[in-house]
Amino acid sequence: MDRDRILLTPGPLTTTLRTKLAMLKDWGSWDGDFIAVTAKVRAGLLDVVHGQDSHVVVPLQGSGTFSVEAAVATVVPREGHVLILDNGAYCKRAARLTQLMGRRATVLEFPEESPVSPQALEARLEADTSITHVILIHCETGTGVLNPLPEVAAVCEKRGKGLIVDAMSSFGALPIDCRSSRIDALIAASGKCLEGVPGMGFVLLRKAVLEQCAGNSQSLAMDLFDQYQYMEKTGQWRFTPPTHVLVALAEAMEQYREEGGQPARLARYVDNYQTLIAGMKALGLKPFLAPEVQAPIIVTFHAPQHPAYDFKRFYQAAKDRGFLLYPGKLTQVETFRVGCIGAIGRMEMQQAVNAVAEVLAEMGIAS
Amino acid sequence: MDRDRILLTPGPLTTTLRTKLAMLKDWGSWDGDFIAVTAKVRAGLLDVVHGQDSHVVVPLQGSGTFSVEAAVATVVPREGHVLILDNGAYCKRAARLTQLMGRRATVLEFPEESPVSPQALEARLEADTSITHVILIHCETGTGVLNPLPEVAAVCEKRGKGLIVDAMSSFGALPIDCRSSRIDALIAASGKCLEGVPGMGFVLLRKAVLEQCAGNSQSLAMDLFDQYQYMEKTGQWRFTPPTHVLVALAEAMEQYREEGGQPARLARYVDNYQTLIAGMKALGLKPFLAPEVQAPIIVTFHAPQHPAYDFKRFYQAAKDRGFLLYPGKLTQVETFRVGCIGAIGRMEMQQAVNAVAEVLAEMGIAS
Repeated sequence: MDRDRILLTPGPLTTTLRTKLAMLKDWGSWDGDFIAVTAKVRAGLLDVVHGQDSHVVVPLQGSGTFSVEAAVATVVPREGHVLILDNGAYCKRAARLTQLMGRRATVLEFPEESPVSPQALEARLEADTSITHVILIHCETGTGVLNPLPEVAAVCEKRGKGLIVDAMSSFGALPIDCRSSRIDALIAASGKCLEGVPGMGFVLLRKAVLEQCAGNSQSLAMDLFDQYQYMEKTGQWRFTPPTHVLVALAEAMEQYREEGGQPARLARYVDNYQTLIAGMKALGLKPFLAPEVQAPIIVTFHAPQHPAYDFKRFYQAAKDRGFLLYPGKLTQVETFRVGCIGAIGRMEMQQAVNAVAEVLAEMGIAS
Repeated sequence: MDRDRILLTPGPLTTTLRTKLAMLKDWGSWDGDFIAVTAKVRAGLLDVVHGQDSHVVVPLQGSGTFSVEAAVATVVPREGHVLILDNGAYCKRAARLTQLMGRRATVLEFPEESPVSPQALEARLEADTSITHVILIHCETGTGVLNPLPEVAAVCEKRGKGLIVDAMSSFGALPIDCRSSRIDALIAASGKCLEGVPGMGFVLLRKAVLEQCAGNSQSLAMDLFDQYQYMEKTGQWRFTPPTHVLVALAEAMEQYREEGGQPARLARYVDNYQTLIAGMKALGLKPFLAPEVQAPIIVTFHAPQHPAYDFKRFYQAAKDRGFLLYPGKLTQVETFRVGCIGAIGRMEMQQAVNAVAEVLAEMGIAS
């Protein structure tokens, strides 16, 4: 039977049928109806993080990484110096794209099982006053660790540094408040906790830094200031928008509001997470992170310490039972990951745990 | 009634229900099933232009312009010198993005109602031997003019220059043969003549220049060589792919093959074009271009020379009758554009002409 699998991955993820059905229509990108959808999505994204007074939303074609690169290219002047708080794979990617575009980049490393340290950040900013901007990954999807955004934002504000936050896998689920945390660029994407389909990202730019962004980007496609100005003037995207992806996001955000917004979304994911953790623990599978630093978004588990374990076999057997797991992204330890996000609830998580139990038994690894 | 409008625009365009229905499923981007779809689409794109022996396909997230920028960034070395053959708005955009990324760019201008001249190109290449690459827009969507690709390719090959071709609005409909035309990078997108939905582009890179592409790009997201290498190794996209857009393209390409491929697609568009031209002529509306330089993709019409004409009213009245037209893109002359592409045939074009007749009568402009 070719039933749809449940995606226990950090995006693309399982979306509702209602969200997907919104894609059964073609939209003219120049037309007023589509312009209205763009405007509604932009306004709705501000609501999620209380950014109505302080920020503007600039949507961008492509994956979330495109929006991260665009945010750095647009916000950081060419002679800027960026400090990347690094505790995982997505931090390293942010450092790499910053260096590649020719901005000066310095990496402040932390162990990948720990959150980054605001104290260490402050010490580094004091020691090196040439730093102009800081990049923080809110929830580092490589491990699933939650980084202390409000504290990092407070240090950056106190020291007068710009802050760029990659909130790819947290936006919409974990609380972010642009009134109390000063963030120059806040980045996320359609296919994560808002439960849309993948294909576009968006950046919330702080109004106070907007004018300084003109002319920074060496990329036309990724120039968020140019995209912003054109959108303000015409309501349209500069270049062909992913029309179906945008209307699916609009529909997903409608359901997000109906569910009760960020607190309700977080509550459901926490419930998914707890169901997962309790079930896996009973199977003898241990999470990689300590519970106090773990975001309820994606969980890294140690692979079973058993000679019969093989990720490919494990993955395929879980897939045969209707669930797509996710490989680990750590180099030192063998792990696998399970996402808690998407249009799924406790029932699906319990079924996933049951499937993993069957798989371990089949592989001869049952504890 | 909220019936779907017919999009007479150069993309996004009207797609079949079958293509859109393919988006009613969520795919894991890491999963083998999705990897197989990516591989099938990549192979199918080579078939369209006979590039199996000479080229590789690198898909890229984002709109077509992202792929144009990525092609220039990847193929042209940092000390390269690019000559842009300019007869319209998309040529000017290609020049702008080339300059912005720091490559030396020279523009060779032609009138926008004429194709670019291979003779003028050859003279310029002879006069300035520092030029390393040439950019050609195959069908300049700003006006709809068809540029002489085989002749330009012959000059570039003879002179040993790299050729980058933006075939955004021609790929799949107009014949392109990579066996007889030597093209280093050939660019198009999902939501054009292949009749998929918008959200991704792709670049066919000539194998012979691939290795020289390493390290050229200053953008991580747009580094087609990096994307290519990762894809060859893993079958996956480097960053989250627009999964629903890709499966829609795969489904659209299935229908493309069933229809009879490029010759059949061109024949239908030519029929659409002729139906449009004949009908509009009977209404007194004149095309901007001479027929011999007009591609059957998008037609620019002179706006009616009548005091009662107003594009916004004209557009809205046509929309009320079920058809979305497209604004002109010329600065000197008042025009509007009508696309001949998408999942539409003679019937829709005749209905569009009938609607325009009604609109002109209603506006008091009937001839």
